[in-house]
Amino acid sequence: MCELLGMSANVPTDICFSFSGLVRRGGETGPHKDGWGITFYEGKGCRSFKDPSPSFNSKVAELVKSYPIKSKSVISHIRQANRGGVNLENTHPFIRELWGRNWTYAHNGQLTGYEDLAMGYANPIGQTDSERAFCWIIDQLHKQYKQPPENMLEMFKLIASYADQLKKLGVFNMLLTDGEYVMCYCTNNLHWITRRAPFGKAQLIDEDMTVDFQQETSDSDIVTVIATRPLTKDEAWTKMHEGEFCVFHFGERVL
Amino acid sequence: MCELLGMSANVPTDICFSFSGLVRRGGETGPHKDGWGITFYEGKGCRSFKDPSPSFNSKVAELVKSYPIKSKSVISHIRQANRGGVNLENTHPFIRELWGRNWTYAHNGQLTGYEDLAMGYANPIGQTDSERAFCWIIDQLHKQYKQPPENMLEMFKLIASYADQLKKLGVFNMLLTDGEYVMCYCTNNLHWITRRAPFGKAQLIDEDMTVDFQQETSDSDIVTVIATRPLTKDEAWTKMHEGEFCVFHFGERVL
Repeated sequence: MCELLGMSANVPTDICFSFSGLVRRGGETGPHKDGWGITFYEGKGCRSFKDPSPSFNSKVAELVKSYPIKSKSVISHIRQANRGGVNLENTHPFIRELWGRNWTYAHNGQLTGYEDLAMGYANPIGQTDSERAFCWIIDQLHKQYKQPPENMLEMFKLIASYADQLKKLGVFNMLLTDGEYVMCYCTNNLHWITRRAPFGKAQLIDEDMTVDFQQETSDSDIVTVIATRPLTKDEAWTKMHEGEFCVFHFGERVL
Repeated sequence: MCELLGMSANVPTDICFSFSGLVRRGGETGPHKDGWGITFYEGKGCRSFKDPSPSFNSKVAELVKSYPIKSKSVISHIRQANRGGVNLENTHPFIRELWGRNWTYAHNGQLTGYEDLAMGYANPIGQTDSERAFCWIIDQLHKQYKQPPENMLEMFKLIASYADQLKKLGVFNMLLTDGEYVMCYCTNNLHWITRRAPFGKAQLIDEDMTVDFQQETSDSDIVTVIATRPLTKDEAWTKMHEGEFCVFHFGERVL
């Protein structure tokens, strides 16, 4: 099982706060020591930092913690390998271009029978069930839409129906983004929270550190954070149910 | 015009040496201040660091300089924008998956009439002539080979013929790799050198620093470096001619 973290915001937002908890969970306070990755969007471009080594002592993780990259859309993942070796090509998030957009994906869980998922437009580079499931989704979308969809929400409903099919193969908790929308799909472990001004103090579960969001943000800021488990003690996170999905557009839930 | 740097080696090799010269050329000793990127392969996986800001004062560049990532295949690029805005999505290298492999590409030069290049399998995310030309190459390859080619060298000859067509649109100096092979194509500015043991001392042109390769490598190491201009004073670089291409396989020239 792996840890997921996603963020969707209406202004470029520093992810360091929520991320520092996740980093400690990678091998130090949790068993997720087989790789770690994070993807930030800046406009249509995105930037990934990945490391197959445990995140709690990773040099790249240190950089991300100390480097305040601001983004509206972020996906991060800490891995405990169950399918595929521990190496860079098997490290989430995975990215593919579709319709001239970067699609970024991370998966938590384990699938059986995934070898039978037919590949076409996109093909896996590594050996994980996760990447193969992602390529299958991209392939289904490419078959359905030769051009970028006009109705994005209808498309995300379609992706949710693909996720329903993947859930039949096992545990499928997923984060997916094109840099504008952030989608999450839950089998058993996913929570989210939307923070709006005025922001109160929130305490990290893994660290003795308190961040006052009022100092970090303006009156109109909306920031949604999605995570395997709640990352803060002082806030009310929404627990997702089996088969449920959410789509956020720049912080606001739209589906 | 932009600066290119590529490396192909038979053992994972530290790129820091050749890279430190290129970094200084980005905005300090040269005019290439509109973005910078480098992609390292580790097996089939690859890792990119990119920054739309000048490389000579980039925090990410500092990390790469101080972080000894060892790789057999590397492509790097410093940009002076002539097509497309200065932002992350227009920053080289560009990457696409084809046949379950990561293909990484960087281009130096300027093309006209590139808007007419037909897109199909791959589509540009940014607005540069460079990325559109790359997508066109990927699309041609996908049309030609539905499966991974059995004869890779024949495929690279085909890519060279595509590059010949792109050269008709302007200046097309290119680096391309799938992590195993590194190809370079020259219109007007590209040099390469293959270093073999015993390695002598070599002095960087841009830095007052001398690296003794004998301390860095073993007897059987082969390292090829490809760059817009020679990066060292004390070595004989091969200048490429217009329309010429080379393909290196783990350091050795194979085409």
